[in-house]
Amino acid sequence: MLTDTIWKNARLATMKGAATGAGDIGAVDNGVIAARDGRIVYAGPAADAPALDAREIVDCAGRWITPGLIDCHTHLIHGGDRAAEFEMRLEGASYEEIARGGGGIVSTMRATRAASEDDLVASALPRLDALIAEGATTVEVKSGYGLDGTSEIRMLRAARALGAARPVSIRTTFLGAHALPPEFAGNADGYIALLCDEVLPRVAQQGLADAVDAFCEGIAFSPEQTARMFEAAARHGLPVKLHADQLSNLHGAALAARHGALSADHLEHCDAAGIAAMARAGTVATLLPGAYYFVRETRLPPVAALRAAGVPIALATDCNPGTSPLTSLLLTMNMGATLFRLTVAECLAGVTAHAARALGLLADRGTLEAGKRCDLAIWDIERPAELVYRMGFNPLHARIWSGQ
Amino acid sequence: MLTDTIWKNARLATMKGAATGAGDIGAVDNGVIAARDGRIVYAGPAADAPALDAREIVDCAGRWITPGLIDCHTHLIHGGDRAAEFEMRLEGASYEEIARGGGGIVSTMRATRAASEDDLVASALPRLDALIAEGATTVEVKSGYGLDGTSEIRMLRAARALGAARPVSIRTTFLGAHALPPEFAGNADGYIALLCDEVLPRVAQQGLADAVDAFCEGIAFSPEQTARMFEAAARHGLPVKLHADQLSNLHGAALAARHGALSADHLEHCDAAGIAAMARAGTVATLLPGAYYFVRETRLPPVAALRAAGVPIALATDCNPGTSPLTSLLLTMNMGATLFRLTVAECLAGVTAHAARALGLLADRGTLEAGKRCDLAIWDIERPAELVYRMGFNPLHARIWSGQ
Ligand SMILES: [Zn+2]
Ligand SMILES: [Zn+2]
Repeated sequence: MLTDTIWKNARLATMKGAATGAGDIGAVDNGVIAARDGRIVYAGPAADAPALDAREIVDCAGRWITPGLIDCHTHLIHGGDRAAEFEMRLEGASYEEIARGGGGIVSTMRATRAASEDDLVASALPRLDALIAEGATTVEVKSGYGLDGTSEIRMLRAARALGAARPVSIRTTFLGAHALPPEFAGNADGYIALLCDEVLPRVAQQGLADAVDAFCEGIAFSPEQTARMFEAAARHGLPVKLHADQLSNLHGAALAARHGALSADHLEHCDAAGIAAMARAGTVATLLPGAYYFVRETRLPPVAALRAAGVPIALATDCNPGTSPLTSLLLTMNMGATLFRLTVAECLAGVTAHAARALGLLADRGTLEAGKRCDLAIWDIERPAELVYRMGFNPLHARIWSGQ
Repeated sequence: MLTDTIWKNARLATMKGAATGAGDIGAVDNGVIAARDGRIVYAGPAADAPALDAREIVDCAGRWITPGLIDCHTHLIHGGDRAAEFEMRLEGASYEEIARGGGGIVSTMRATRAASEDDLVASALPRLDALIAEGATTVEVKSGYGLDGTSEIRMLRAARALGAARPVSIRTTFLGAHALPPEFAGNADGYIALLCDEVLPRVAQQGLADAVDAFCEGIAFSPEQTARMFEAAARHGLPVKLHADQLSNLHGAALAARHGALSADHLEHCDAAGIAAMARAGTVATLLPGAYYFVRETRLPPVAALRAAGVPIALATDCNPGTSPLTSLLLTMNMGATLFRLTVAECLAGVTAHAARALGLLADRGTLEAGKRCDLAIWDIERPAELVYRMGFNPLHARIWSGQ
């Protein structure tokens, strides 16, 4: 078989087991990957490979290859940062003082509204480049700091522009229901109606979003308001996700599962009923250890119960200026292991197969299997555990996106 | 005045306040640094600068300059890693199973003894490069995994070789008293006698160590044994440091202070008497948040009491394979703030002025002041808090070591 490129003499973490829930990394000791037209045509043991020829043959010298990493939950596009607020908090400032000093999500909303699309792209590119430098090949990006029609759409356009600016797949998520903008104070229902009746239709018509997300929480939107967003998403044929059960238990995970959500994210306060509903619906649990660490949360997500119920667990940076200014999937994996006690195999699955599933893309990527995109990360390591164990060290040797 | 290089149009964090204990970053808004023969000849406001000429003038376009970062506590030289042990622990293996599987410090000792000097250098260089990539210009490196004369000396030679291989200042510390080697099981006094009477004299005679360190702990060496090491160090004119009060309170900080130690490190269990002794002796408190995080310690070092007593606080990676596989001073600062609630100014002082002091080098480096080494880190940031706030993001624009 004539292919474009063959990577030989590699050790593979195919993550095939993770895709089916078996939970191992699908290791192959003397492995080969062959790609044609950006797709894997063979990935497996050299001994079982068909006769292969290629324009280019890469000797991996025993290096490990994993699927390209996937960050399935980010707020990469936003105006400004919250470093000043972080500094004030460390000096003992109260929430009131920070709010008076212009802190909080409203400060990010203002900076985002004031930024042009080019501004938003320019400020997000260094963050995206940090993810790419560690082998990320697919990155989800949410709106949710514009909080009006024009600004939300500008955020989504900027997110799409990131994918044109770099060799990376960007998946966009409409998160208009992230917070209540000041214009709608006391009228959350009115804001949800605006999103459902005016903004989302424009977003959908322009093809700017691949999914719809919301923040279901006492400080954000109620389960009823969230359900309205989900129903509107369904009318436009868009899958849904949810920021669920982070600060309290509003049964967000169960709500998400009822609507067939791709994922429910955060989940620190998720209960047994929510976990059972997710398991039945095939909804991924996306855990966000960076936010847990940064806000010094002490309530752990229910990892053992999720594991026992067979709910696939994804890990993501949640990169955002307020609660997780994190741009490293390697560090995310370390936090997943150190803070949440996920195993090495679970961490790797969390940023590959299960992250792909959380974006509705598992059939297309997230494992090393024939037919899938040839998105690879090639690592200078002796064992995959090193990717999880080290902190602040990047052993990426090469990164392949769409076969190149 | 004719100089070699002028950096103009910069914002400076001179850290001069930190050096004298005042605790601010010594910010200069429109600053200039001039260097000649690797030394700063002027650092301060452009308005106050003498007439300066230079072979090279660098326009910093408003970027921030800090002193080059200093990692004052690392175990960068070691054989092997402990990723397999990390993986086993996450899968629920007991300490006994890990010990039977060849884990623990003895496994690092075996790998270190089996490695040649070139092996040790080659395996440490990627870790050193990770530190350098974030602006580190001085790195301390300890022995302590050889645990016999030949291997300890080989480690120190390898550490010195790192400094020849890269544009960075390496300071070496003899830590023969890190753990009891199996050959001396039940005979810690005998091992300490060997170190004091045979190994340290050779180390000192060959000029291989800039300081002497020990691990004073129930699982390591007693205060009496530590004092014997310190007395031997004094006979060779070497300053001392101590791994003190990490797992229990053996009054290690007070012991270190009595011997005029440069620093006492870890300190989770340090008491008021220890803090008062450090304050009187001018001993630096070196906090190691990476180890605190990685081993999931819950007892915090006494930050408020150290602060109140005016003890200078340094921060370091403690880079080591067992309890802190960390190679990022930026992440160390974030952990210092997030986990220990140090302020931004304290974090910056911890990896500059106070880290220099912990190595006995404050007169020579660690602040931006005339007469000191021209070791600089130039950052693409709007405010220094960004260096502490972000996780897994490196905004280093340029790094200057010895004026170049
Ligand atoms: Zn989020
Ligand atoms: Zn140490």
